[in-house]
Amino acid sequence: MSRGFARAEYEARVQRIQTGMDRHGLGALLLTCEPDVRYVSGFLTRFWESPTRPWFVILPARGAPVAVIPSIGAALMATTWIADIRTWPAPVPDDDGVSLLAGTLREIGGPVGIPSHLETHLRMPLDDFHRLKEMTGLAFIHDHGILANARAVKSPAELTKIETICAIAGRAFARVNEIADEGVPLSQTFRDFQRLLLEEGADWVPYLAGGAGPDGYGDVISPATDAPLAPGDLLMLDTGAVYDGYFCDFDRNFAVGAASETAKSAYKRLLAAAEAGREVLCPGSRACDAWRAMARQVGDADTAGRLGHGLGMQLTEGLSLTEADTTVLTPGMVVTLEPGLDMPSGRIMVHEDVFVITETGARQISPPAPSDLPII
Amino acid sequence: MSRGFARAEYEARVQRIQTGMDRHGLGALLLTCEPDVRYVSGFLTRFWESPTRPWFVILPARGAPVAVIPSIGAALMATTWIADIRTWPAPVPDDDGVSLLAGTLREIGGPVGIPSHLETHLRMPLDDFHRLKEMTGLAFIHDHGILANARAVKSPAELTKIETICAIAGRAFARVNEIADEGVPLSQTFRDFQRLLLEEGADWVPYLAGGAGPDGYGDVISPATDAPLAPGDLLMLDTGAVYDGYFCDFDRNFAVGAASETAKSAYKRLLAAAEAGREVLCPGSRACDAWRAMARQVGDADTAGRLGHGLGMQLTEGLSLTEADTTVLTPGMVVTLEPGLDMPSGRIMVHEDVFVITETGARQISPPAPSDLPII
Repeated sequence: MSRGFARAEYEARVQRIQTGMDRHGLGALLLTCEPDVRYVSGFLTRFWESPTRPWFVILPARGAPVAVIPSIGAALMATTWIADIRTWPAPVPDDDGVSLLAGTLREIGGPVGIPSHLETHLRMPLDDFHRLKEMTGLAFIHDHGILANARAVKSPAELTKIETICAIAGRAFARVNEIADEGVPLSQTFRDFQRLLLEEGADWVPYLAGGAGPDGYGDVISPATDAPLAPGDLLMLDTGAVYDGYFCDFDRNFAVGAASETAKSAYKRLLAAAEAGREVLCPGSRACDAWRAMARQVGDADTAGRLGHGLGMQLTEGLSLTEADTTVLTPGMVVTLEPGLDMPSGRIMVHEDVFVITETGARQISPPAPSDLPII
Repeated sequence: MSRGFARAEYEARVQRIQTGMDRHGLGALLLTCEPDVRYVSGFLTRFWESPTRPWFVILPARGAPVAVIPSIGAALMATTWIADIRTWPAPVPDDDGVSLLAGTLREIGGPVGIPSHLETHLRMPLDDFHRLKEMTGLAFIHDHGILANARAVKSPAELTKIETICAIAGRAFARVNEIADEGVPLSQTFRDFQRLLLEEGADWVPYLAGGAGPDGYGDVISPATDAPLAPGDLLMLDTGAVYDGYFCDFDRNFAVGAASETAKSAYKRLLAAAEAGREVLCPGSRACDAWRAMARQVGDADTAGRLGHGLGMQLTEGLSLTEADTTVLTPGMVVTLEPGLDMPSGRIMVHEDVFVITETGARQISPPAPSDLPII
């Protein structure tokens, strides 16, 4: 499995974005966040975990991106297709790249688009952003979602990476019986499941959530406690593991020791809800259409929250399967379907799978879930 | 090992921050980033990996923080000491918490401080920040570094967590001979080392960097390639693993098969440089003093970059050991010393350990490094 992308992939991405820039009259795009920078440059590192340094990539209206980055990243950036790399010895308290960035932007020209909509932020100090605006005199405006829209439609090469990490996670899920059992603390199960993901080929495991409890679990964002798994517990593991910079995001449910009729039928109902969502996934459908198809199946369409989302270089990205999201599906979009049920226990049960929109419908990327709730 | 902190810990943090707010006349602090939110609230989740939803915690000039968060986080936030929790069903495209946040801020009053200095950013859409300013009519100004300064000095309970994760990483480093050997791809070594960290008790492994090569490695931020380890290679692994929300950050070097005299003496020189830095670590010394002591040892003080940094809830946080950073060290600060050498091979070699400033000097938190370059 080869890593990275051919230069043509980046050229195609940039061309698509620049077409949007032309339409909106943007002279430059200023990118500061990891996935946006990586999307146009190929710059892949876990060093973003350190908040110390800002990183900037500017996409002009014509030509290749320009990197304005801390010197510690120069060698790695030089391995990408980016030729124009300007560095400063960050961190420099008095001027942490601001005047270098300002000079570069003045040279390239504005107006400067910045991703400013839902799900985005500007990864640079606010004080420095104010100085940048003063120093350049350029107009800084929103990017009209150009970058997010480009990222939403995956190339075949991107799909291969998402398929790879979904297959890795599928193999790890198939081994959960090795690690989870009555008496094993949930926190231990979390650690061991991350180990399985690494053994099966994940580069790293940025995200793991889950829960366990009798006929359901609480919310799905809490860290694992040391409470041991008990007979009759439902165990859910939901992972966002990464291969070559691309995420999977799906979950699997297991019954510990034995499954109650309640749990078994809830599981079937979740699979049916996901199937109802899948039937709607095709070019021309909207995100809210898929939401509605699932919300009807899981019961109360008035209270159902987000039932899925886009996926790719981030754990969640782009569209949301909610009542309010009218994004139209197009081939190449990768979407998770994530129906959830309120259980009689007062807890919840959630199922999630990954799909890609094709010319005629949708194809499941995550390995098929067992048709019956598996017992471990 | 207990998780979380007693309520008194949060009350003490908030009191310290509010003293700073009084001094600078701030009516509220607006916090949007994971570590800042967690520092005052105790809200711990890996769900921040999803960029979809913004999260807000407001610290008034008096009293406990107020959470303005997506409803998906309400149950987890309710387990913290925060009582005033206001939610909206994010993501809502038209108004993703902005009017709820604006109303809360108007109620609490300004001026509103926001961390705006080096190393910070505002984690919310720029468009929404503009709307927030318009809707509230309040003054939004920088926070004068109040929050970062509070976080810089660790409590005994925080130190225990950093000590725990450093010990975990130490045990994993002691097992590197189990996973790294001639012929093993570096990418495999990276995956396996993350597995060791999990086996030894890390909750997760947000960061792993490293390198391998004859008498040194290239930059230390590139992802691992599939190139196999070769006899005579220097292998370096540098990890930021997490226990209960606190990071370690240190590295270890190994020679594969045999160590050259060059590598052995460079290793000794790095240990000596770290020792020179440690001798300067004491209350009243400045970050630049420790930098200078190490820069002299590793040679060219004109070209040495950052040779260490603060550590805690983030992989790197707070002060930088650079020529320009005049931060005065105080007891409770946790600092890494990270001297690096340019090797005759044209590559580099780096060593890193973790220290806490005490009343009289500094105490090493990371387990002692071998006094001679270990051979695996």
